[in-house]
Amino acid sequence: MNADRTRVRRLPGKQVTDRAALDAVLDAGRVAHVAVLDDERRPYVLPVAYARDGDAVLLHGSTGSRLFRTLATGAPTCLTVTLYDGLVLARSAFESSMHYRSAMVLGRATPVAGDEVERALRVLVEHLMPGRWADVRQPSAKELAATLVLSLPLTEWSLKVSSGDPDDDPADLDLPVWAGVVPVHEVLGAPRPAPDLRTATPVPAYVRSWGADAGA
Amino acid sequence: MNADRTRVRRLPGKQVTDRAALDAVLDAGRVAHVAVLDDERRPYVLPVAYARDGDAVLLHGSTGSRLFRTLATGAPTCLTVTLYDGLVLARSAFESSMHYRSAMVLGRATPVAGDEVERALRVLVEHLMPGRWADVRQPSAKELAATLVLSLPLTEWSLKVSSGDPDDDPADLDLPVWAGVVPVHEVLGAPRPAPDLRTATPVPAYVRSWGADAGA
Repeated sequence: MNADRTRVRRLPGKQVTDRAALDAVLDAGRVAHVAVLDDERRPYVLPVAYARDGDAVLLHGSTGSRLFRTLATGAPTCLTVTLYDGLVLARSAFESSMHYRSAMVLGRATPVAGDEVERALRVLVEHLMPGRWADVRQPSAKELAATLVLSLPLTEWSLKVSSGDPDDDPADLDLPVWAGVVPVHEVLGAPRPAPDLRTATPVPAYVRSWGADAGA
Repeated sequence: MNADRTRVRRLPGKQVTDRAALDAVLDAGRVAHVAVLDDERRPYVLPVAYARDGDAVLLHGSTGSRLFRTLATGAPTCLTVTLYDGLVLARSAFESSMHYRSAMVLGRATPVAGDEVERALRVLVEHLMPGRWADVRQPSAKELAATLVLSLPLTEWSLKVSSGDPDDDPADLDLPVWAGVVPVHEVLGAPRPAPDLRTATPVPAYVRSWGADAGA
């Protein structure tokens, strides 16, 4: 991971090389942005749901998706997960910034095949909705055939973390300007039952527990 | 915007062609993901702060940033802003999904020059931190010289919105599985003063008002 392609050039002090820190960011995120090129080598950036699975990131999409079909050919890609953690209010416009954690994974994805597909879908569902897999109807053969699951190895990656207090110019410290950090959290709202819910099934305990974790 | 490049192929029913809806998504987001290619035409996806300015999206970065220097040459790019709005819990794994709004802007950026730079920085600061510009120290000539502001026109764009209730297979509706939507909101935490804050300046009213808007 210390390859030239993944060395952070801008603000290298923000680069984190600890693999456990990478895993923590990937495990905390829910949406990645993935790039592919079109026939004229112009880039497209699309959001995808993902999950880390050991030393790889799993993605799933429709076999009808251009993004997924292109990635499945082994086209070079970049998958980036950014967690936006807060606003940094410095005394100057110039030093005003954000707290974020951004993980970038470079490489080529390969299709997941055979029995691994169902296991991969379980990993994806459990990442996004912990506890849900055992509750829902499992994929049918037809549904599995319509789903493309890709695996992108965690071999070339970088992680950039911006945290800490405002870094003002010493000359600005006496200005009568409030400075500090305003944290940002993602929180879950109250579960809203589907209008066509026919059973008296209450909101499952595992769903209620998601909200308890939010903003932690 | 109905050009071939921006026609949504996957789930075209989710495409929204209303420019006001695009503006609303861009105005609600804070982080965009932007693509550039390296010398070997491999894509990179990087997070950037941005702001909509009328019919363009503004980005700012360091003159030392490879991303910004590459974009400034007019390289084709794609800027995507995704708002993650909730989890959709269907009765089947297959129909489980997310609520999101994702805006994609294609094109080439141009550097903002002259007096427009300071105005663009004000637009950026005011988008991310409304009310802040008038309070902070304005950029010095040296700081302006170190900043590259780019403008990407809103000419080629697409917007995809996933909302609504679970779309279960009719055969699944009688399953004893809870179904519904769990909304996700971004909220701001309590402002945390910088440790080197020397004045008795309280948290400004405009900063307090950000939290009041959150989760709305």
